[in-house]
Amino acid sequence: MAEKIQIREVGLRDGLQIVKTVMPIDAKLDWIKTEYEAGVTEIEVCSFVPTKLIPQFGDREEIVPQALAFDGLTVTALVPNIRGAEDGIRLGVHKLNFVMSVSEGHNLSNVRRSTEDSFADFAVMARRVHEITGNRPKIVGGLSTCFGCTIEGKVSEQRAIEFAHRLLDLGADELTICDTVGYASPDQVRRVFEGILKFTGNTPVAAHFHDTRGLGIANALAAADVGVRYLDSSLAGLGGCPYAPGATGNVVTEDLAFLFASMGFDTGIDIEKLLKVRDIVARALPDEKLRGGTYQAGLPKDFTYAKAR
Amino acid sequence: MAEKIQIREVGLRDGLQIVKTVMPIDAKLDWIKTEYEAGVTEIEVCSFVPTKLIPQFGDREEIVPQALAFDGLTVTALVPNIRGAEDGIRLGVHKLNFVMSVSEGHNLSNVRRSTEDSFADFAVMARRVHEITGNRPKIVGGLSTCFGCTIEGKVSEQRAIEFAHRLLDLGADELTICDTVGYASPDQVRRVFEGILKFTGNTPVAAHFHDTRGLGIANALAAADVGVRYLDSSLAGLGGCPYAPGATGNVVTEDLAFLFASMGFDTGIDIEKLLKVRDIVARALPDEKLRGGTYQAGLPKDFTYAKAR
Repeated sequence: MAEKIQIREVGLRDGLQIVKTVMPIDAKLDWIKTEYEAGVTEIEVCSFVPTKLIPQFGDREEIVPQALAFDGLTVTALVPNIRGAEDGIRLGVHKLNFVMSVSEGHNLSNVRRSTEDSFADFAVMARRVHEITGNRPKIVGGLSTCFGCTIEGKVSEQRAIEFAHRLLDLGADELTICDTVGYASPDQVRRVFEGILKFTGNTPVAAHFHDTRGLGIANALAAADVGVRYLDSSLAGLGGCPYAPGATGNVVTEDLAFLFASMGFDTGIDIEKLLKVRDIVARALPDEKLRGGTYQAGLPKDFTYAKAR
Repeated sequence: MAEKIQIREVGLRDGLQIVKTVMPIDAKLDWIKTEYEAGVTEIEVCSFVPTKLIPQFGDREEIVPQALAFDGLTVTALVPNIRGAEDGIRLGVHKLNFVMSVSEGHNLSNVRRSTEDSFADFAVMARRVHEITGNRPKIVGGLSTCFGCTIEGKVSEQRAIEFAHRLLDLGADELTICDTVGYASPDQVRRVFEGILKFTGNTPVAAHFHDTRGLGIANALAAADVGVRYLDSSLAGLGGCPYAPGATGNVVTEDLAFLFASMGFDTGIDIEKLLKVRDIVARALPDEKLRGGTYQAGLPKDFTYAKAR
């Protein structure tokens, strides 16, 4: 039995958030549908930031219900604040991805409040979610700049681990540990995740890497080496960070799927079907640079999956 | 004391061999000089294939002596056959890189002989080199398609390990284990190198990865994890393989240097100086696609090397 690893698509949120062209809703839905059909089981479909700040997500009231119609697909959304969480709850999103930074400077730039204020927001949000009777969304504690910060430089590994612990104590159903700015090195990744996995028990802990300096896939490998089984990535590596100059984007979903399939993990993804999603994105965003080797080269001759698909 | 890891530049050979534009000799020498000054201590400067087959290396009689003038630089060259080895010996190359494939089909396509004939050639070459009295070049046994083959598909790991053993028995001073076609996965890399490092003792064993499907840096990490301390790469990821359709090139030297520096290894390389070599290549080969994240993003804020440079 092949061990499972889950790849979670964040391109529709993290990828699109810095793309100036608003992607037509039909293309977004086609992206979601085609990637769902390729076997991706969790997709972050939007962000609940004010539309006047990021027009890209102005269509979320239509996107979320249509994404929820795909049987078995976990639909997630970024919620920057309590108001966003309320919107997510109202629309029935499965997971609310809250995000704050480990470094004070990045948090101030990105969400315009201190990390203490962000913890307070998360506490309110988590309480609100846990009070819902019946079906409730999961509340995910996301931490960016866990491995370094474009504003502050080095970030203490101990501080990243402690922040993860605090989010868990405040009621996080899951954690996502992020290298938003592409500073992480594989040994640092191993140390931080080992530190976090010590106290998380059955709580899922996901890794979210950017490929800014070419180490995204190596960092994903390092995370998997120490037991991480949930990883974020972005189709064609779309993305970046408004506070990471020169950022080259997220880890490429297609290459990440190839990495784990080639190692004998069961990702549930049919890579050839996944590669077809590229055409949808390329047509809708002709000016964006799409990255990734697997798309260009195709699968190796006689490539086999650990589990037939 | 930071542990050392050596990155060996192969862009002038493996990178340029499929580039149709013959790079002007002054640009090649500037590349060698600038990369040497950035701290790279071994450069494969040419291939001793017939000039009528690959005009790119028609300047080797001038390149080799000028490269040998850099104090402390190890100058290496690919030698496809005995005649090439004789040329290398005459010119005083420090290392003769012989290469054959593990898969029969790739060897037939690439060097037009059976693997048994290639072993016989290597035996002659190794004997010739070992008979030289006084200073002699090192003879390196290189094996391509160790992790899969575009013609034959899967390649037996045991066969790759046995081939390495045979080259050692025939007198190889070093081995280079190659994923010429970008089929390797990190777990396969670990198994094959673990198998080889069991019997190589003090003989250096190098890893040579292509980045065809985005796993080049992850495979380099995997090799380092099991003890490999010599790695090939190509500036800006230049390269590919005539028998690997869609190949996206070699592992990017700049990103590989960043990988190991970020993990606290001492590569001896000043990455900021290394990044300047890109401009030389970009000017001389304006039509080539240069890859790599570190060049685009620069080093992280407050980045420190394990050993000051």
